[in-house]
Amino acid sequence: MNLLLKEIRRNPMLWLLAFVPVVFVAAQLRPEAHTVLFVLSVLAIVPLAALLSRATESVAAKTGDAAGGLLNATLGNLTELVIALAALRAGEYVLVKSSIAGAIVANTLFMLGASFLLGGLKHRVQEFNRAGARLQAGLLFLATVALLMPSAIAERDASTGPAVAQQLSLGLAVLLIVGYGLGLLFTLKTHRAEFAGAEHGEEGEAPWPIGLALVTLGGVTVLVALVSEIFVESVQQAAEAFGMTPAFVGFIVVALVGGAAEMAAAFSGARKNRLDLSVGIALGSAAQIALFVAPVLVLLSYVIGPTPMDLHFWRGAVAMMFIATLTAAFVTNGGRSAWFVGVLLLMVYAIFAMTLYLLPPQLQ
Amino acid sequence: MNLLLKEIRRNPMLWLLAFVPVVFVAAQLRPEAHTVLFVLSVLAIVPLAALLSRATESVAAKTGDAAGGLLNATLGNLTELVIALAALRAGEYVLVKSSIAGAIVANTLFMLGASFLLGGLKHRVQEFNRAGARLQAGLLFLATVALLMPSAIAERDASTGPAVAQQLSLGLAVLLIVGYGLGLLFTLKTHRAEFAGAEHGEEGEAPWPIGLALVTLGGVTVLVALVSEIFVESVQQAAEAFGMTPAFVGFIVVALVGGAAEMAAAFSGARKNRLDLSVGIALGSAAQIALFVAPVLVLLSYVIGPTPMDLHFWRGAVAMMFIATLTAAFVTNGGRSAWFVGVLLLMVYAIFAMTLYLLPPQLQ
Amino acid sequence: MNLLLKEIRRNPMLWLLAFVPVVFVAAQLRPEAHTVLFVLSVLAIVPLAALLSRATESVAAKTGDAAGGLLNATLGNLTELVIALAALRAGEYVLVKSSIAGAIVANTLFMLGASFLLGGLKHRVQEFNRAGARLQAGLLFLATVALLMPSAIAERDASTGPAVAQQLSLGLAVLLIVGYGLGLLFTLKTHRAEFAGAEHGEEGEAPWPIGLALVTLGGVTVLVALVSEIFVESVQQAAEAFGMTPAFVGFIVVALVGGAAEMAAAFSGARKNRLDLSVGIALGSAAQIALFVAPVLVLLSYVIGPTPMDLHFWRGAVAMMFIATLTAAFVTNGGRSAWFVGVLLLMVYAIFAMTLYLLPPQLQ
Repeated sequence: MNLLLKEIRRNPMLWLLAFVPVVFVAAQLRPEAHTVLFVLSVLAIVPLAALLSRATESVAAKTGDAAGGLLNATLGNLTELVIALAALRAGEYVLVKSSIAGAIVANTLFMLGASFLLGGLKHRVQEFNRAGARLQAGLLFLATVALLMPSAIAERDASTGPAVAQQLSLGLAVLLIVGYGLGLLFTLKTHRAEFAGAEHGEEGEAPWPIGLALVTLGGVTVLVALVSEIFVESVQQAAEAFGMTPAFVGFIVVALVGGAAEMAAAFSGARKNRLDLSVGIALGSAAQIALFVAPVLVLLSYVIGPTPMDLHFWRGAVAMMFIATLTAAFVTNGGRSAWFVGVLLLMVYAIFAMTLYLLPPQLQ
Repeated sequence: MNLLLKEIRRNPMLWLLAFVPVVFVAAQLRPEAHTVLFVLSVLAIVPLAALLSRATESVAAKTGDAAGGLLNATLGNLTELVIALAALRAGEYVLVKSSIAGAIVANTLFMLGASFLLGGLKHRVQEFNRAGARLQAGLLFLATVALLMPSAIAERDASTGPAVAQQLSLGLAVLLIVGYGLGLLFTLKTHRAEFAGAEHGEEGEAPWPIGLALVTLGGVTVLVALVSEIFVESVQQAAEAFGMTPAFVGFIVVALVGGAAEMAAAFSGARKNRLDLSVGIALGSAAQIALFVAPVLVLLSYVIGPTPMDLHFWRGAVAMMFIATLTAAFVTNGGRSAWFVGVLLLMVYAIFAMTLYLLPPQLQ
Repeated sequence: MNLLLKEIRRNPMLWLLAFVPVVFVAAQLRPEAHTVLFVLSVLAIVPLAALLSRATESVAAKTGDAAGGLLNATLGNLTELVIALAALRAGEYVLVKSSIAGAIVANTLFMLGASFLLGGLKHRVQEFNRAGARLQAGLLFLATVALLMPSAIAERDASTGPAVAQQLSLGLAVLLIVGYGLGLLFTLKTHRAEFAGAEHGEEGEAPWPIGLALVTLGGVTVLVALVSEIFVESVQQAAEAFGMTPAFVGFIVVALVGGAAEMAAAFSGARKNRLDLSVGIALGSAAQIALFVAPVLVLLSYVIGPTPMDLHFWRGAVAMMFIATLTAAFVTNGGRSAWFVGVLLLMVYAIFAMTLYLLPPQLQ
């Protein structure tokens, strides 16, 4: 605990933690002040994300980058799962789906791209374990192919299509979860050695003791989940006040803020030339959302939702996920990166963001 | 001959050969008992496939894996050519096309995937000649691009589209055959050394003398062709009795049983860590169907068919071939495999199978 | 000057230079004799292209292959920019767009493919700097994704779509130019070493002095631009006289003749086993058209065009650019080539050409 306080005293960014109680109080007193709540919740998420990143690195120092990346991805996505569950219970399937698709695209393009760029500005050429990147890209490709099918069927036939898409979604959900489980078995058990990151000598700060790190991870994750809920509630109205289209908010803004914690960890890893950690968080988190979070939501919708949810995404979302996966596969293929590779990924993301920003409402 | 009998005595699976005469007699006596004929023909194809595989390996031991793979692929596809010719003469172009597309997808995803999985369960990491895999994937990509064109044209304009698609198909057929011939010239003649498989010390059984192997190859191929014809006739009705959609039968069931012989050889090669043989059979056979069998059928349709056949496939089939080719290209790019790579390929195949199984009739 | 005359005396192909004044005179006297002007202008472009190639090589001998490739691509595209500007001023946006798309596809498939084939017929296996090829393929991929968006939006909604596509095109144009600039910064400045070609001992002819080379480059570029203009004016009518569709002329014939100068340089580099030069010209030129020429034309259309031009290409053109980019990325991934790789690329190009040749007018 002392160590945690010392850390907060030393790092000015953590002083923003003061906004965490403020946003909770404000949400109670003025639940209709959306723009204020939006700004406050973003200010509160940033230091929480920084703490989460610091705790993850300390755990990763014990477990190795591959397992550390998985841990970080899981905790980051827990937040998203918590938010999605609330939306699921309310039957807001469009919001659930757009946050899933947005998170996958933001992780594969923005998080990976910014990691490459930030790392590349400091280090001329960076290497990472290409076996891991290839595997995650393969899993993402599998998920994208799976998402193509219900969308194609549902759009080609308005009468029986949706019912078939629902059945198919159930089968695909089970298949994707099995695929994800086998992927974990492969990377963490049978072929663990192939996915170990390189040794990294450069280590800026001493890692925290494992106990403190784990307690911080747990506690901060809960706080992020609570603040995120306020953020999601306020973002839609606040965004309209700023003149953004709903598609842009759901796909871009929510995904970027929702992934802030993981991004902080990924970027920090890249700056410290631990690109295996960054790639593991970025692609691992995207794969986890596509092969675990989304299918689990489909299964849970049979229990807690008003009606079952399917995996039918709108065409543009499927296309963007497919392009993002192709890009990530192409770019990580060689296991090396430099700053311009990050620029390429970020530019593809910028093209998507620009298109969604300008998209007329009737096309969304 | 003695050697052949000894082999049959030693290998219990070959005792199923007894079903070969049974199925011929049954087809004569009770041609309308489709479900019985379906089961009998599957039981008869299995041991024939095993024999074919054993004979091919004996020949491959003499010729090297690349030429052995080509030989096996050719003999395997001869069967399919024989069946397709019968359907062509009857003008059943939908059946011909769906068996072509189904065979390409089954070879690139199921046969390759199961080879990687079966090989990977026995050997931690397996290597294969990536030059060969890349070339076959390139040929498949070429064929997929060619098949895209008539389909796009025929579907965009109902009046003149089909006539143009027919002309275009004729030109593309010639182009693909030329491409296939140049590919053979490249791999077997000018750059033979680059495509030679690695030396394999582990050799379970002594190869047969070349004479016996060749005679067995020829004889068994004829038997497989005859039994396959009974199988194809009975499968449609039997499948309906089991509640399968026509698209599922044509694309999945026929392709899997029709490829049984090649699969037996590919899987056996993978278990013996001769992955070059497996990859050669799987991708080589797919490329041969796409660049040789299909174009030859188009050309022959001008001579023996009631009307010329074009290369216009339904959109879903083209999309599946394209995804299968992309997947195979991505996965074989590195020249190494482990069990999970096989799982990935099989899962993409399972996604296709599941979709076709649930596809409502009006979308097929 | 003496050196230049000696070169002309020695090389019979350069005697065709006599057609340069002839075509100018003919265009003045008989501007309506389209077929004659078409033949004359092709005859005049060929020796100019050869001169340009010789001069470029001389400069490249001084600057290294990467910068030499950029120089050659830029001069080659200057011609295309000059022609496009004339069409832009006249508001002929369909012609501008089809020549842009055609040039991208011709460079990535035909120029690269023919370089690989011609080089491969002389050298068994050729190596090139894969870092450079991957970067150019990445830039092309970025541009293709950018071009997808306005086309998708404009085609899905006839009322507001075009206006949105126009806004989006403006944003994308700026983004692509920034991307291109950063790419140059990366290859020529921060990571120059990674993109340096291999040393090439084999050097057939002595390079010209740099002064003569630069003057020739400039003068011949102007002549090519002037002759090209006559060519473009006559090609449409001449093509109809030969029975070609407008799509085939715009996409194939104009692109091939317009790129003749660069092709001569690329092919000559490939024959001399300087494949880095060939790949640099082919992919570099395609990337420059997609990320610099096309966006600049969009921006200039606001100044000199009758109405602003957008980046909305017809669906088939976008699909062909996407396939061409995928093919080039796949094929150059390994950094090695042999003659059959060239055949593969040329065959994909032949499939496109064949389709466009047969395309009924209402589908164009």
